[in-house]
Amino acid sequence: MQILDKETSKNTIKHWFMHLQDHICRDLVLADGGNSTFKEDIWTRTEGGGGRTRTLTNGKIIEKGGVAFSAVWGKTPEKILSALKLENADFFATGVSIVLHPHNPNVPIIHMNVRYFEMSNGIWWFGGGIDLTPHYVVENDARFFHSQLKNACDKHDSDYYPKFKNWADDYFFIKHRNETRGIGGIFFDQLNNQPKENIFDFVKEIGNTFIPIYTHLMKINHEKPSAENEKKWQAIRRGRYVEFNLVYDKGTKFGLDTNGRTESILMSMPPMANWDYQFPIIENSLEFKTQSYLKKGIEWI
Amino acid sequence: MQILDKETSKNTIKHWFMHLQDHICRDLVLADGGNSTFKEDIWTRTEGGGGRTRTLTNGKIIEKGGVAFSAVWGKTPEKILSALKLENADFFATGVSIVLHPHNPNVPIIHMNVRYFEMSNGIWWFGGGIDLTPHYVVENDARFFHSQLKNACDKHDSDYYPKFKNWADDYFFIKHRNETRGIGGIFFDQLNNQPKENIFDFVKEIGNTFIPIYTHLMKINHEKPSAENEKKWQAIRRGRYVEFNLVYDKGTKFGLDTNGRTESILMSMPPMANWDYQFPIIENSLEFKTQSYLKKGIEWI
Repeated sequence: MQILDKETSKNTIKHWFMHLQDHICRDLVLADGGNSTFKEDIWTRTEGGGGRTRTLTNGKIIEKGGVAFSAVWGKTPEKILSALKLENADFFATGVSIVLHPHNPNVPIIHMNVRYFEMSNGIWWFGGGIDLTPHYVVENDARFFHSQLKNACDKHDSDYYPKFKNWADDYFFIKHRNETRGIGGIFFDQLNNQPKENIFDFVKEIGNTFIPIYTHLMKINHEKPSAENEKKWQAIRRGRYVEFNLVYDKGTKFGLDTNGRTESILMSMPPMANWDYQFPIIENSLEFKTQSYLKKGIEWI
Repeated sequence: MQILDKETSKNTIKHWFMHLQDHICRDLVLADGGNSTFKEDIWTRTEGGGGRTRTLTNGKIIEKGGVAFSAVWGKTPEKILSALKLENADFFATGVSIVLHPHNPNVPIIHMNVRYFEMSNGIWWFGGGIDLTPHYVVENDARFFHSQLKNACDKHDSDYYPKFKNWADDYFFIKHRNETRGIGGIFFDQLNNQPKENIFDFVKEIGNTFIPIYTHLMKINHEKPSAENEKKWQAIRRGRYVEFNLVYDKGTKFGLDTNGRTESILMSMPPMANWDYQFPIIENSLEFKTQSYLKKGIEWI
């Protein structure tokens, strides 16, 4: 085992991601009150590989949550080859994806993805990110969230946080609404500017920040009372989450385009999302304040 | 006025579409019980033209409905020019779009669009369609719906119904679910195979079938009782409606891509849509029967 670890092989990465999925599911169940359970679906991909999709429904705090691991391989899809201007090559891709939709609109929606990709021609990279979508933006929570991400980034490279924070602002953007999906976070892709084991260490750091960040946000917010109009606003924000995922999210679009496992790809979709025509936002309301924060370039720290 | 009418000018078509919007709104309010009202938003487009978006919220039968008219003009968007392999040209486009989401899951969702497009280089065509998305497929209703469309088509060209019915099967298809959006209907685009006034007559015929078709389906279905599990299934089907519109619908995608009026484009989105991970369908249930009808090539007549 030592030998495998030394060279940061695809199997080392894959097994670490499986372990990450395990510990995140275990800790989420504990944070949710200890009585909910993740339901697991193990699936295989005809062309090579497969995954473990785990979902939690109607927990105490989490209304709908998915924590998915996959490791797939085979011939590189044409779309990737042409984007990279490459000839035929085999690929291997593994990752963990998480989206959690809480019951209480005072608890934010969270998303994390960490992934590794390599090809038979020697090309490799890591990608990933964490972003937060509060139904109601709370400045203290936003500062806490971004500080935690900055701390994690700074341990590895002081350029990472500012660069990946801007990248998240640009990526998690709903162009047709001229608004960000939430308060951003970090996003990075095709990262291979350092030896593989260094970047793998960074990706592990990000993976390991997920539980302390989100369980804190669950804990301090889940008992806040929420009125009917706040549930309505939550449903509107969930609608925007759907719009982002189906119209812009590269992973979702790529998965649906390339005949991926639809139920795993769309486990990110919310329960009970709503669209009102021109939902009215009252000036100086909490919804108004939240809307004013849905823009790029806010420095939370 | 006689002179304009004779040559089926763009203004003649535009005014007929405005009139269609007026009479459809009026008759929908009557069919809904006479107490609901459409709220109108008049908007203008910086580059030329504008529209009247009318929406009805929480009627007696219709939970959310939109009936939109627009007439826009200006420089032809680059996307259309390159698709048609054409140099610079001005365009004019006018149309009416309708989507109605009823409260009762026994009443189907309906969509209609009729549109006219022309360019300064003399190119012109009509497009449009009507399709039905029952939450629960009722064979008699499906036969009625398709018979009405066939009758309307047959008055103009006996090739239209079979051709446009297949086109609707192919168009209103959710590839990643391997299912149709509903029971189809008719769909046609770039229709200019006959003198303009003949095709305009056909488009008028289609526009005029909308009210007798849908008010009949409202009338016979809106008082049927619906249980909690049927409301849940309705929310699931609405989720699929969202998936089609955001992932595949050409009008929606084109509108969002080209900086169209987002609230008008997305007035088609349903209230309260739901995504469950792997929603279970019990064998031989009504949901199971409906699911079995969500495929191409069913001959309803």
